[in-house]
Amino acid sequence: MTSESAFIDKLRAFATHPAARGLTDDAATLTHAGRTIVLTHDTIVENVHFLPGDPPEDIGWKLAVANLSDLAAKGAKPIASLMAYSLSGDGDWDARFAAGLGEALTRYGCPLIGGDTVRVPEGSARHFGMTAIGEAEFVPGRDGASPGDDLWVSGTLGDAGAGLAIAKGELEGPKELLQAYRRPVPQLELGQKLAPLVSAMMDVSDGLLIDAGRMAEASNVAIAIESIDVPLSSAFVGVRGDTREASIEAATAGDDYELLFAAPPRSRRQIETVAEGLDAHIQCVGLVEAGKGLSLQEGGRPLPLPETLGWEH
Amino acid sequence: MTSESAFIDKLRAFATHPAARGLTDDAATLTHAGRTIVLTHDTIVENVHFLPGDPPEDIGWKLAVANLSDLAAKGAKPIASLMAYSLSGDGDWDARFAAGLGEALTRYGCPLIGGDTVRVPEGSARHFGMTAIGEAEFVPGRDGASPGDDLWVSGTLGDAGAGLAIAKGELEGPKELLQAYRRPVPQLELGQKLAPLVSAMMDVSDGLLIDAGRMAEASNVAIAIESIDVPLSSAFVGVRGDTREASIEAATAGDDYELLFAAPPRSRRQIETVAEGLDAHIQCVGLVEAGKGLSLQEGGRPLPLPETLGWEH
Repeated sequence: MTSESAFIDKLRAFATHPAARGLTDDAATLTHAGRTIVLTHDTIVENVHFLPGDPPEDIGWKLAVANLSDLAAKGAKPIASLMAYSLSGDGDWDARFAAGLGEALTRYGCPLIGGDTVRVPEGSARHFGMTAIGEAEFVPGRDGASPGDDLWVSGTLGDAGAGLAIAKGELEGPKELLQAYRRPVPQLELGQKLAPLVSAMMDVSDGLLIDAGRMAEASNVAIAIESIDVPLSSAFVGVRGDTREASIEAATAGDDYELLFAAPPRSRRQIETVAEGLDAHIQCVGLVEAGKGLSLQEGGRPLPLPETLGWEH
Repeated sequence: MTSESAFIDKLRAFATHPAARGLTDDAATLTHAGRTIVLTHDTIVENVHFLPGDPPEDIGWKLAVANLSDLAAKGAKPIASLMAYSLSGDGDWDARFAAGLGEALTRYGCPLIGGDTVRVPEGSARHFGMTAIGEAEFVPGRDGASPGDDLWVSGTLGDAGAGLAIAKGELEGPKELLQAYRRPVPQLELGQKLAPLVSAMMDVSDGLLIDAGRMAEASNVAIAIESIDVPLSSAFVGVRGDTREASIEAATAGDDYELLFAAPPRSRRQIETVAEGLDAHIQCVGLVEAGKGLSLQEGGRPLPLPETLGWEH
């Protein structure tokens, strides 16, 4: 058990409200006056979630999108947000951060309504938190996947991971990969339209394999991923190829902020219609089965799981 | 202009939702399905808001109370909370923090429903954030004080400041002062009952003078504080005396988490009845007047304002 899960176990002792969902989901839901409010909080820390040299506009953008993506995964429409900001000591840096944050919050209709600004002691990592609030009619958990469901993912995977390697100077590649790392897009409309059709949904911010494993655990089912079906962009294939290794890299890379969802086969047609209507790419990447745990296949034949399934915080 | 206020000015550009109240209040309010939801976020940082040697139970308690006190000041009843936690690297420390947090959240009926847990790089200050959500019928702002209003404060002031001096080893004094610093109490019931009677209310967490100055600025009025009326506990007087200097120290000390409110003279009787019913101490400490800014008096004669009005983050 990691120190994080040990700590969360302690918190469960007083997280007894049904809205807490046992602290296993990305977001909490409160029913208030007959409507469902979705609340999520994500914190990003320098040298953990972003690089000190990343443009501050992009860090601000990403703080917003990390939270908006959790709303998207719950089918929620953004209402408002609160921010916890640690002043950087550099007014120009702070102003640039605010500009990127404001751009994302304005674009996705999630006005800032409050928060807190603090100083951090000299030498401490910068950290930024956001609570995003949304509302929804149908709120899929990550715990509803059933044997027989298809497992789908939106977009393409691995782009942000390759973009991070470019940002670190470890890789050369096209600008769109760097853009995928620095300016991810939350799948809000797709999430809202899929919510009534799916049995489980979450965002895939830490890597397809690790996040699918979490869905399997929460749903008490087995999930089998087909590596050949992991959706890759042509930009990604251009730098990493389309080998088995490339697929596994894409399936274990973080920061993609795509949607991972399970749905019964009878919903296929409707799901495809929703995606076409939004011009969104979706791909069936696996199957939900009776049992426990995650497995990987290649053309239907078992493939051993990689040692690292994704990004553990 | 401090770097904090310059930054908040940038944020106002996209904090255009009425709920944001121009980012001048301690809490935001959202009207949802005809009811008012109050949201607040406070972050506490090691070596800024607490001492590294403070017992972790007390730090957890304080994180909860800092937020509950903002709900109290808006007359709100707690609904739930989300926490942003930076793992300390010490599982026992984390468990003790969780115990203190859970004690406060359970006592004041504010279950934890979600949040985020992060690691911070080696050598970084620990930081903890909380978003607390409440509901209210009447939500007083800090901007409603009118000329002619009385200015009131609950409890006694300066106790937590003296407790901090004890915790730092700078002062010897009774345990109740240390307790006031480490285990502050949010004035939830008092806040809920006062809300319909007051024209403005906020908590006085940074010091009476600085917080009254903020109320004056937000309300576009002048506020005059009478130093003789600053309420002091006998424990405080025991260590600091009851001199002018002691009163000014109490009026500029932080962490008291009492309520500061303005109300028209016609509400006096009702306000006193509410306080008596809850066995709460309240004291009229000043007057709201036409004009601008904060002034201090002693027995009605002008006293110069001290250089530091309270605790600036």
